[in-house]
Amino acid sequence: MEKTTAILLFSCPDQKGIVAAVSGFIARHNGNILDADQYSLQPENMLFMRVEWDLEGFTLGRGELEEAIAPLVKRFGMHWKIHLSDYMPKVAIFVSRHLYCFHDLILRHRMGEFKAQIPLVISNHRDIEPLADFFGLACRYYPITLENKDQQEKREIAELEREGIDLIILARYMQVLSAAFVDRYPGRIINIHHSFLPAFAGKSPYRQAYERGVKIIGATSHYVTEKLDDGPIIAQDVIRITHKDSVDTMKLKGKDLERTVLSKAVRLHLEHRIATYGSKTIIFE
Amino acid sequence: MEKTTAILLFSCPDQKGIVAAVSGFIARHNGNILDADQYSLQPENMLFMRVEWDLEGFTLGRGELEEAIAPLVKRFGMHWKIHLSDYMPKVAIFVSRHLYCFHDLILRHRMGEFKAQIPLVISNHRDIEPLADFFGLACRYYPITLENKDQQEKREIAELEREGIDLIILARYMQVLSAAFVDRYPGRIINIHHSFLPAFAGKSPYRQAYERGVKIIGATSHYVTEKLDDGPIIAQDVIRITHKDSVDTMKLKGKDLERTVLSKAVRLHLEHRIATYGSKTIIFE
Amino acid sequence: MEKTTAILLFSCPDQKGIVAAVSGFIARHNGNILDADQYSLQPENMLFMRVEWDLEGFTLGRGELEEAIAPLVKRFGMHWKIHLSDYMPKVAIFVSRHLYCFHDLILRHRMGEFKAQIPLVISNHRDIEPLADFFGLACRYYPITLENKDQQEKREIAELEREGIDLIILARYMQVLSAAFVDRYPGRIINIHHSFLPAFAGKSPYRQAYERGVKIIGATSHYVTEKLDDGPIIAQDVIRITHKDSVDTMKLKGKDLERTVLSKAVRLHLEHRIATYGSKTIIFE
Amino acid sequence: MEKTTAILLFSCPDQKGIVAAVSGFIARHNGNILDADQYSLQPENMLFMRVEWDLEGFTLGRGELEEAIAPLVKRFGMHWKIHLSDYMPKVAIFVSRHLYCFHDLILRHRMGEFKAQIPLVISNHRDIEPLADFFGLACRYYPITLENKDQQEKREIAELEREGIDLIILARYMQVLSAAFVDRYPGRIINIHHSFLPAFAGKSPYRQAYERGVKIIGATSHYVTEKLDDGPIIAQDVIRITHKDSVDTMKLKGKDLERTVLSKAVRLHLEHRIATYGSKTIIFE
Repeated sequence: MEKTTAILLFSCPDQKGIVAAVSGFIARHNGNILDADQYSLQPENMLFMRVEWDLEGFTLGRGELEEAIAPLVKRFGMHWKIHLSDYMPKVAIFVSRHLYCFHDLILRHRMGEFKAQIPLVISNHRDIEPLADFFGLACRYYPITLENKDQQEKREIAELEREGIDLIILARYMQVLSAAFVDRYPGRIINIHHSFLPAFAGKSPYRQAYERGVKIIGATSHYVTEKLDDGPIIAQDVIRITHKDSVDTMKLKGKDLERTVLSKAVRLHLEHRIATYGSKTIIFE
Repeated sequence: MEKTTAILLFSCPDQKGIVAAVSGFIARHNGNILDADQYSLQPENMLFMRVEWDLEGFTLGRGELEEAIAPLVKRFGMHWKIHLSDYMPKVAIFVSRHLYCFHDLILRHRMGEFKAQIPLVISNHRDIEPLADFFGLACRYYPITLENKDQQEKREIAELEREGIDLIILARYMQVLSAAFVDRYPGRIINIHHSFLPAFAGKSPYRQAYERGVKIIGATSHYVTEKLDDGPIIAQDVIRITHKDSVDTMKLKGKDLERTVLSKAVRLHLEHRIATYGSKTIIFE
Repeated sequence: MEKTTAILLFSCPDQKGIVAAVSGFIARHNGNILDADQYSLQPENMLFMRVEWDLEGFTLGRGELEEAIAPLVKRFGMHWKIHLSDYMPKVAIFVSRHLYCFHDLILRHRMGEFKAQIPLVISNHRDIEPLADFFGLACRYYPITLENKDQQEKREIAELEREGIDLIILARYMQVLSAAFVDRYPGRIINIHHSFLPAFAGKSPYRQAYERGVKIIGATSHYVTEKLDDGPIIAQDVIRITHKDSVDTMKLKGKDLERTVLSKAVRLHLEHRIATYGSKTIIFE
Repeated sequence: MEKTTAILLFSCPDQKGIVAAVSGFIARHNGNILDADQYSLQPENMLFMRVEWDLEGFTLGRGELEEAIAPLVKRFGMHWKIHLSDYMPKVAIFVSRHLYCFHDLILRHRMGEFKAQIPLVISNHRDIEPLADFFGLACRYYPITLENKDQQEKREIAELEREGIDLIILARYMQVLSAAFVDRYPGRIINIHHSFLPAFAGKSPYRQAYERGVKIIGATSHYVTEKLDDGPIIAQDVIRITHKDSVDTMKLKGKDLERTVLSKAVRLHLEHRIATYGSKTIIFE
């Protein structure tokens, strides 16, 4: 049986006594710290911390946590969030016609890699239908054109809200989301881009890599911000290629990268291991 | 100007309140935690922790630390050590005829990668002389034969004690140290072995790798224990090879690995980032 | 439209004039060499070569190749094989209860990564049934016990022969094949082992890796020979782990490795890019 | 004793019979091919080939090679070059104040990794003096200012010509060479840039990487062309970093990369394993 835990993720100006205060708070209520990690960003003097403790024997009830932590929050000026490990975040996956990332995510979900529910799959193409059926996933189709984009996005958002979606994964979704959409889910939309960002942002990164003659290609998973392929990077990986690689063989090799990198980013997010600060992520691994 | 810090490294049976007690102790004496990392090994239920704090404004003097921490040590049953960052550990390097690891260590030392002094170099061959001269390093020669090994080791140990050596680095030292020698420096002798241990322990690992037809070769840095190539592993790295690689080209490629892996292990040790438990290391990176 | 090509793979004692003779043979019959690669193993003085040419305009018919090449074969004492790229090799996949490698192979097959047919899936467990059904794959069940192993293997072999299977993939098949079985398919059975061989051969490699405290884990794909986990290695890959990794998280991380490494080995085999010599493979990539 | 070999490196429009003609030419003069590699770039339909053969027993003298090969060259429209393995190319190293790449190159040269002579070291700073002295290398100082750049480059070129330099290595030389200089040594100046190009070209790449928050940093070795950091890439490598890495620790980690990548590029060049085509390199490894 897995333990039920609480995860406190916070940031605040760094000063003496924070770790003592936070761990003291947990100890006073009989909590056992399982994992604690912190990072002090300099010269900004910002502290980022993640602490996870066992809820067994913890003397505060779930409803009491927020009030109990309030004095700490106030004293240090924390931005904070508490996550309980038995809450299963709700994930929506957006997909177009390249289905390998989607398929991989679903497989990993089935194998228990992600603690999450996937109540919603959204696509602008019907290609996904047989696969969604096989896996018993609800799938909604919103074909996007230049004319209907605004309207379709509104429908998508309505759907996302209805389902109470916590995280959106763009699993090779070939549409750029509008700023209005992105603003609605800050730090809650994860994209996979098939290059080693910031190299080869935008269209056809493998084609760009081929033209430039690089010896290594990559994949980058990042939070989506208004500016294309520019959000905080969560995970990256690369593989070697040679002059023998065509754009097609790059695509083939890149698939493995994309899958691995996207799933890693999703797992980190679902385990509340990511803090963001400007264009950066702090990963508590 | 770099900060002067204290680093507390300890292990003890895991229980509630340890982090709170330790961070509380530091906070009470006005210390600012710069870095804290911990790991709870299960099912052994052992906690390993490394905490580093700024000594500026810390109200305890160096001489008072031990006494002040005693109640904590007693309460939790800690094995512990405190290191002050302004102490420069004394390192001895043992070397034979392959000098590239030695040369690399000295270069890194010169470039400021290691906070340490190197008062002593020991070799069983004279090959090192011009290099040691150029770098202005004291070098002692103890040629080892089957007959004189005991006696020579005793002389080496006497030398090591005279210099107050804290860490011994075997930089491709081609002699096996006796159990008596090893026992004298538990967790304080670092070796580099040119294979991905536990594969290809012992002699001629590249030859072994060639015979087996592996596609990847490696290097391993580890603490020396009585059993050859069997001590706790600190760092490992690998590179790809192909069928085209001969034993000679493996040696060539392996050199880069050996240098990088050995220097990484040395740096981790000198920064007090390593805890050992049985055959394992916990690396607080 | 992809070109139809012929691939000549041969080995023979190395001597002057072989490349000239082989490429002259192809040129004389109006063939255009698309790819040629060779390797001279020393001191064994064995030449291994793979040459692929376009069949368009080639003046020899398929039925005439063997006879036409006979003088070359005789002159140089070649062991040889010619493969035509429009023949789709028949692959059988053996699987037990861990289905992720199987699932991955099928997905890659669907995405066109493998030029092959998969007429047969063999399992000793029923777990695979829904997946095989979804993908429309014929699946045969041969539960193995100590008592029935001989008999079941005979049935499996009969099935393999009936289907004219060219290649057997053990996709985490948890049974050791008998020597009699292995002898029947020399260089035609590919296994995936979840360690960096020769480290951690045999049972529970992740458990072994955990106990030893390594910092890197691996996966190895190899041809199956009589001796367990000892056949010629085709492909290997590794990933870093830390002291925080449990056997369970190693398994999780290892899955990605196993899939990538196995599929790479299968692709190399299907593209006739592998020559074997004793315990080694020559990979013409 | 190492064999004396000839290496023919050529490119030409691809057509049937080239390999046969080239290998036939070698065989007719009793040459034994040790290594042959080719690549057909599509859709450009350009063939690149490298073939190396043993000169023992080869019936053509050194002075006869050019004339003997002329018909082949004419027939296929080859751009070509023949290198003899017993010619020791003359290398000049340019360096500024960061000496670790220089030091590494010299060490490798000493250890026999490069078949080359290093008759000339050029620097715009005196920092290198003790090191050059220790290694017994002739060093020339040409401090560069905005005003004297043209003049100093002319002096450098005169020096390079006097020594008959074949290859120039910019080992962290912090000056941009003028177009006039670069034009004089096309495909014969190798630079190391401390980023994964094309990401972070230009100044302070580690700073740029830090600002962008990437999870991997790299180094790139490339031929120098008129456009800064834009020439054909020879070798690249990367390492993982985390949010904990500052610009300083990136610099530290990057040093290992830079050294390895630069030395790899130099070795490939000295072994005549590189063909260039536009912005690309074909590496015959």
